[in-house]
Amino acid sequence: MAILKVEIRTGAYYDSVILMQLQRSLAEQPGVIDAGVVMGTDANKDVLAQSEMLVPEAQQANPDDLVIVVKADDEAAAQAALDKVDELVSSRRSSGGDEDYRPHSMETAARMLPDAHWVLVSAPGRYAAGISRQALGLGKHVFLYSDNVSLEDEISLKREAASKGLLVMGPDCGTAIVNGIGLGFANKVRKGPIGLVAASGTGMQQVCVRIHQMGGGLTHALGTGGRDLTEAVNAITARQGLDLMARDPDTKVIVLVSKPPSPKVADELVKAARSAGKPVVVHFIGYATASRRVDNIFFATTFDEAAELAVSLVDSQEDFASEPDISKFAEGQRYLRGLFSGGTLQYEVLLILKSYLPVVYSNAPLDKKNKLEDSLVSVEHTVIDLGEDEFTVGRLHPMMDNDLRIRRLEKEAEDPEVAVILLDVVLGYGAHSDPASELAPAIAAGIKTAKEAGRHLEVIAIVSGTDEDPQDMDGQIKLLVEAGAKIEISNDAAARYVGRLLQAIERSNEPPTEDKMQHVDLETLKKPMAGINVGLEAFAEALIDQESQVVHMDWKPVAGGNEKLAGILERMKGK
Amino acid sequence: MAILKVEIRTGAYYDSVILMQLQRSLAEQPGVIDAGVVMGTDANKDVLAQSEMLVPEAQQANPDDLVIVVKADDEAAAQAALDKVDELVSSRRSSGGDEDYRPHSMETAARMLPDAHWVLVSAPGRYAAGISRQALGLGKHVFLYSDNVSLEDEISLKREAASKGLLVMGPDCGTAIVNGIGLGFANKVRKGPIGLVAASGTGMQQVCVRIHQMGGGLTHALGTGGRDLTEAVNAITARQGLDLMARDPDTKVIVLVSKPPSPKVADELVKAARSAGKPVVVHFIGYATASRRVDNIFFATTFDEAAELAVSLVDSQEDFASEPDISKFAEGQRYLRGLFSGGTLQYEVLLILKSYLPVVYSNAPLDKKNKLEDSLVSVEHTVIDLGEDEFTVGRLHPMMDNDLRIRRLEKEAEDPEVAVILLDVVLGYGAHSDPASELAPAIAAGIKTAKEAGRHLEVIAIVSGTDEDPQDMDGQIKLLVEAGAKIEISNDAAARYVGRLLQAIERSNEPPTEDKMQHVDLETLKKPMAGINVGLEAFAEALIDQESQVVHMDWKPVAGGNEKLAGILERMKGK
Repeated sequence: MAILKVEIRTGAYYDSVILMQLQRSLAEQPGVIDAGVVMGTDANKDVLAQSEMLVPEAQQANPDDLVIVVKADDEAAAQAALDKVDELVSSRRSSGGDEDYRPHSMETAARMLPDAHWVLVSAPGRYAAGISRQALGLGKHVFLYSDNVSLEDEISLKREAASKGLLVMGPDCGTAIVNGIGLGFANKVRKGPIGLVAASGTGMQQVCVRIHQMGGGLTHALGTGGRDLTEAVNAITARQGLDLMARDPDTKVIVLVSKPPSPKVADELVKAARSAGKPVVVHFIGYATASRRVDNIFFATTFDEAAELAVSLVDSQEDFASEPDISKFAEGQRYLRGLFSGGTLQYEVLLILKSYLPVVYSNAPLDKKNKLEDSLVSVEHTVIDLGEDEFTVGRLHPMMDNDLRIRRLEKEAEDPEVAVILLDVVLGYGAHSDPASELAPAIAAGIKTAKEAGRHLEVIAIVSGTDEDPQDMDGQIKLLVEAGAKIEISNDAAARYVGRLLQAIERSNEPPTEDKMQHVDLETLKKPMAGINVGLEAFAEALIDQESQVVHMDWKPVAGGNEKLAGILERMKGK
Repeated sequence: MAILKVEIRTGAYYDSVILMQLQRSLAEQPGVIDAGVVMGTDANKDVLAQSEMLVPEAQQANPDDLVIVVKADDEAAAQAALDKVDELVSSRRSSGGDEDYRPHSMETAARMLPDAHWVLVSAPGRYAAGISRQALGLGKHVFLYSDNVSLEDEISLKREAASKGLLVMGPDCGTAIVNGIGLGFANKVRKGPIGLVAASGTGMQQVCVRIHQMGGGLTHALGTGGRDLTEAVNAITARQGLDLMARDPDTKVIVLVSKPPSPKVADELVKAARSAGKPVVVHFIGYATASRRVDNIFFATTFDEAAELAVSLVDSQEDFASEPDISKFAEGQRYLRGLFSGGTLQYEVLLILKSYLPVVYSNAPLDKKNKLEDSLVSVEHTVIDLGEDEFTVGRLHPMMDNDLRIRRLEKEAEDPEVAVILLDVVLGYGAHSDPASELAPAIAAGIKTAKEAGRHLEVIAIVSGTDEDPQDMDGQIKLLVEAGAKIEISNDAAARYVGRLLQAIERSNEPPTEDKMQHVDLETLKKPMAGINVGLEAFAEALIDQESQVVHMDWKPVAGGNEKLAGILERMKGK
């Protein structure tokens, strides 16, 4: 019959590596079956109970208490194991050997390694914010691994950092790669032209390793902590990271990853990413998008796909930085008028334009609040479906009869606020046998009307058909081009072209916004890694393994973690 | 000064081609500036008003009244034009030449062309349901172009058709291609292995032409009418179409397209498509999905993308019909236990499993209602994140310390209902220097425990790392494989594998459902096209152009469209 013995130590701090080592060492003592060494939190008590080691004394322990439980064959073996606790702890502690060289304060550490631009913080959560504040005070970027840090602390740390042009990656930031050197948990990934910003630890690691496995490589991978894209934190670190990657000439493709974000914050971050001037792969977990791509933004739905997209975009020849030419339009020209015969084509255009224009009115809108009061009178940006039932009582479908569309086109061309007219020309059996013969003259007349009034009217015709259709597609296109129309054969491409054009016009009408962000200095990311490590020794060892400079602080909580005593000391300092 | 003259004709039916021709002919008369020939609906009056032709008499007209307005230079010219109306109408009417051969009843038409399996209906909406019912009565498939047909009529027509193994494509179905022959508005598209089912007219045309432009081709493209995927209609026609395409050996890839569907109906249709045994591209406009692919289902977000996906899938070597082997599991084994160290990896797995399993419990679930009551006790399908804050107070992260995971793995392996254990092994700097040395023995022991109890335990390890990581990824994989684990290096692939496996187990536990659908005979789609056309002559001409047989009915509404008289006749018939 196994027996259980327990020892409770109150108000003592041990780091979690020591606790793990102690538990293992105890379990290896003669006659010992199992051992548990945990802080007395409820969750940890449950874990003890699972292993049938939750004795009543342990049940009474507080979260600050260290609980040591030994399950052994007999009383003597259990007691013998417990008697060895101090010896086991101190043997572990002295194994490091070079403790003399470990500074006890961050100031000393910073003097020992003046090149250190980074402080890695993995001390227990309740101490982590204070340590991070110290680091920011010394002008260092913070890699904040610790979890159990309050949201208030996160916000105040990140605000302070942003105002100083510094980064706080975290809290609960498991991983980062800065210029090839991993911080925290980080894979060895080859260098290359992809830059990551991620509010997700293992998610970022998965994207990194998949990029590596697919033959790609990274400039940097910056973690932000999993809460960065909540409304409260408002993506402070992600914005800084995005800004860095956009400015970095070595980064050709940006990847943004996040745990489920606030939709509002995610939308704003995507908006900012639209101006990055390079492709941005966005994978916000569970953030469903109706479109797979909007200009330079590519939405992924898994880490694998994010990695694949990023790797494939590296070689893209597309110019993601170009802006459409809007100089040809006269002042005041700013609206779209879409005149569709195809209901679903019109619907797809509305859907795609959602990513470009705030409101598009229609007789068949996506959202009822954008319904035209009068289908015959356009308002601002308007796209109408002339094949809707309201127009087809006793009248042929607009794919057969162009009369209504031509009359409308004339009217829209006269409107001084109209910049773009978009219309579909659907070919095929059953449709008008020669639609361009009627539409082309109307288009030419509309363009002429605008020109005579000193305006430029852009007319885009989506020609939907095949080379085998009875109308002779090439001939139709020729007529429309001669009339001055720009031709697209893809509805998708036409909508995106129009969206970009009108968005550029809208942007040109907005007052310029001042950029208030204190940019993070790109050069600090490119210097050889040098850091101060506070907390888990494993993270200092990892830096040494990567041939980077590091000073590991011999950090202990004030008063050895005894909160009462720490409070007294704090009050004495205040005097 | 232009003058306006109007003539109202009450209770007369003219088809819309004649109205268009009449309007054009009037506008070409000497001294005439413009003309309007419309039925007196409110929308049409608005159109007249737009052209400044809405005189007070026209304003008074009813929807059944034909309104003829002429705008001319002077009174005499206007009157002269109006005087020619009857002459213009009858000259148009007699231009066909072969009216003698046009049957006045559908029965006669069917006798004239016994091979006709199709009836094309494009008569005005209020007559269209009646005509379609006649066609179904004669055992014909119906292509129902007409709009303005009531929802009630649509439902009753489709139910009747489905019970007879017939199709009603429509109402408001603009287009279809059956075995290469276009019905209604249809492009000439080469033959090939892609089959379409679409609740969208020009959307389907756009997909068809893009497929053709990309070098692909079609078996059939079946329209369903834009309301088919509403909750009321419940996708009756789309289900029939999907079933046809799934059974058709010539169709290698299916494309489903719809205007914004009811999410419930869309979900059910996708579920049905999962069993098609071939790739299915789904593009339901505005139907956002968190995943881009689920097994054989590929979600597109534009028509272009749907076409691209379909064309690319034609050459896929993947076996979409295979089912995972679940014979190795013992009876009662059915649940997943996921033990993750990576929070976001766990999250992605939950997200992907949503497409496979009804409920997965977790300590960090997607949906609060699936939160485990006790993180230490698994319930049915459970995936837990052992790196959650609750587990890491005074304890190393599970990427450094395997203790908690190993204890949990032992427990799960003992559970007779557990079929699959999924765990991640994250390599890299900072992580455990040799995790497989601890996890592999635990995995082997778990598999042994299950085996001794007569069960098969499937253990899948996601190894996330690179070949340059300090742990030696190949060595880690080797240890895990020797222990009996299946390895995946992609989290995405692992989740999908597990999803398919568990879904197959769940399916095997369900009682078999009886297939009550009256299948449409695949052979009628493959016969040479022969149809009876009721309504727009253009659609009959289009069939002739495509070298298909057609009988155009000389259809007129009962009593020439005079509803009062039609009512009297109807009552007399009843006696």
